[in-house]
Amino acid sequence: MRNPIRPDQVRGKVTRYREGQWSEAVDVVAAEEPMEIRINWEEDGEPQRKSLTITMRTPGDDFELATGFLFAESVIRSQDDITEISYREEKLERCNIVSVSLRPGIVLDTSRLERSFVTNSSCGVCGKATLSQLELQGCSPLPGDFRVSAAILCNLPATLRQAQAVFETTGGLHAAGLFQNDGTLIDLKEDVGRHNALDKLIGSQVMQGNANLGSSVLMLSGRASFELLQKAIVAGIPVVAAVGAPSSLAVSLAKSFNITLAGFLRSTGFNIYTNPARITA
Amino acid sequence: MRNPIRPDQVRGKVTRYREGQWSEAVDVVAAEEPMEIRINWEEDGEPQRKSLTITMRTPGDDFELATGFLFAESVIRSQDDITEISYREEKLERCNIVSVSLRPGIVLDTSRLERSFVTNSSCGVCGKATLSQLELQGCSPLPGDFRVSAAILCNLPATLRQAQAVFETTGGLHAAGLFQNDGTLIDLKEDVGRHNALDKLIGSQVMQGNANLGSSVLMLSGRASFELLQKAIVAGIPVVAAVGAPSSLAVSLAKSFNITLAGFLRSTGFNIYTNPARITA
Repeated sequence: MRNPIRPDQVRGKVTRYREGQWSEAVDVVAAEEPMEIRINWEEDGEPQRKSLTITMRTPGDDFELATGFLFAESVIRSQDDITEISYREEKLERCNIVSVSLRPGIVLDTSRLERSFVTNSSCGVCGKATLSQLELQGCSPLPGDFRVSAAILCNLPATLRQAQAVFETTGGLHAAGLFQNDGTLIDLKEDVGRHNALDKLIGSQVMQGNANLGSSVLMLSGRASFELLQKAIVAGIPVVAAVGAPSSLAVSLAKSFNITLAGFLRSTGFNIYTNPARITA
Repeated sequence: MRNPIRPDQVRGKVTRYREGQWSEAVDVVAAEEPMEIRINWEEDGEPQRKSLTITMRTPGDDFELATGFLFAESVIRSQDDITEISYREEKLERCNIVSVSLRPGIVLDTSRLERSFVTNSSCGVCGKATLSQLELQGCSPLPGDFRVSAAILCNLPATLRQAQAVFETTGGLHAAGLFQNDGTLIDLKEDVGRHNALDKLIGSQVMQGNANLGSSVLMLSGRASFELLQKAIVAGIPVVAAVGAPSSLAVSLAKSFNITLAGFLRSTGFNIYTNPARITA
């Protein structure tokens, strides 16, 4: 039996391609939303407040997340160091804000705070100190005329695997591959960090004078997150296909900037979350 | 044929457990090392310099990584905006530093720089402005007396999967599970970000008054990276088992702090990278 929809999931329409057949379905993706962690404490009797981090997370267990983050960063040593933890009333710009008050007497190394607590996530947008910067600046929706066939899309995983040397040996690397719409591999980069693999891939093209990749397909060996889509948009890549699942924010961003986003890419098929028109039978 | 060892790989001894049999082998893991990106530019005729980010990456294609990062963040629009890109001579504290000089006339929004460019990686240590902060502060090696049997370790993936509700539906979440050494699941958290899943898991225990998890096993649904190990160390978790591969820095950290690190965990076996003594037949 299917699980009912939950707050940490987002439901949406998906176009499925399997064994040459197209169908429409309703599917759920994991929710991904920014959460800001603020701390309040006293210094020389004066109340202090600081925004420590913004993390892209799946909603739910937010207080646990804030507590665990502060514990991992040694801001707190136990639950006793926290006197109050609550949501801020203001939910500005799609963000949930969790405010943590520390017990009087706790001493914070604020210079370390400045330097250290800028991020805690698999996503590069985290640590950006204002949420408005989640929006892409100066990017417009991509043109819709690029096309790639479903059959060629299904062949990309095999091509990528053949080209992956390191992955076969260590099993520990993410890969990002750039393809022409005839299935030709343009380039492939690998890294322990999926964002690094994509930065390397796009950076290599930029270094060769290609700062607009409007006629290419990006394939990701893992999941499609917000930040990977953000990088694809800046580079003008119209089709992004991932072996893993997309997050809700990746889907939103793809929709806003007219990117075709496919997930669960296999030799036998895939799901299209946005703009299926670019994929031909 | 096996690939030869490469600069982006680290070779090491591994203890294999398969179908009840133990063996020793030499294996390679993906290299993970910090890289700092610095930029140099002119403002009102004055030379300016700034450290933008530290990312945990797999060595190789470092200039591409720096270029791609600057491009994704709209610091540069094309290769023409870069006049020089080079390694800094000083390789301080195990870090590679890539220095990028921007063309005269390029205008940087430095207030945006301050706010935005704190991170770009799947790793929370990135963006920490000095490399010395990669070291854990105030943590000592964990005691070695905790034990868990190989057979129980092999059962954890099945237990975790049974307990995962969201994952089954969306396929888009990382999971972190905490177990007793008899295989009992203590708690499970999920998130689009693997670090968030672990923060939620440990945070939940801290909120219940358990700030030391010295008698438990951590299971990760994905790969084991540096930062996940760092969080485990702070919480005192002696055994970490991952379905995916560990990175080289995760292995180093596990060794330094006497953590037992297992990777490629399946119902049929696993590889142990450090401190196999805690795993009993």
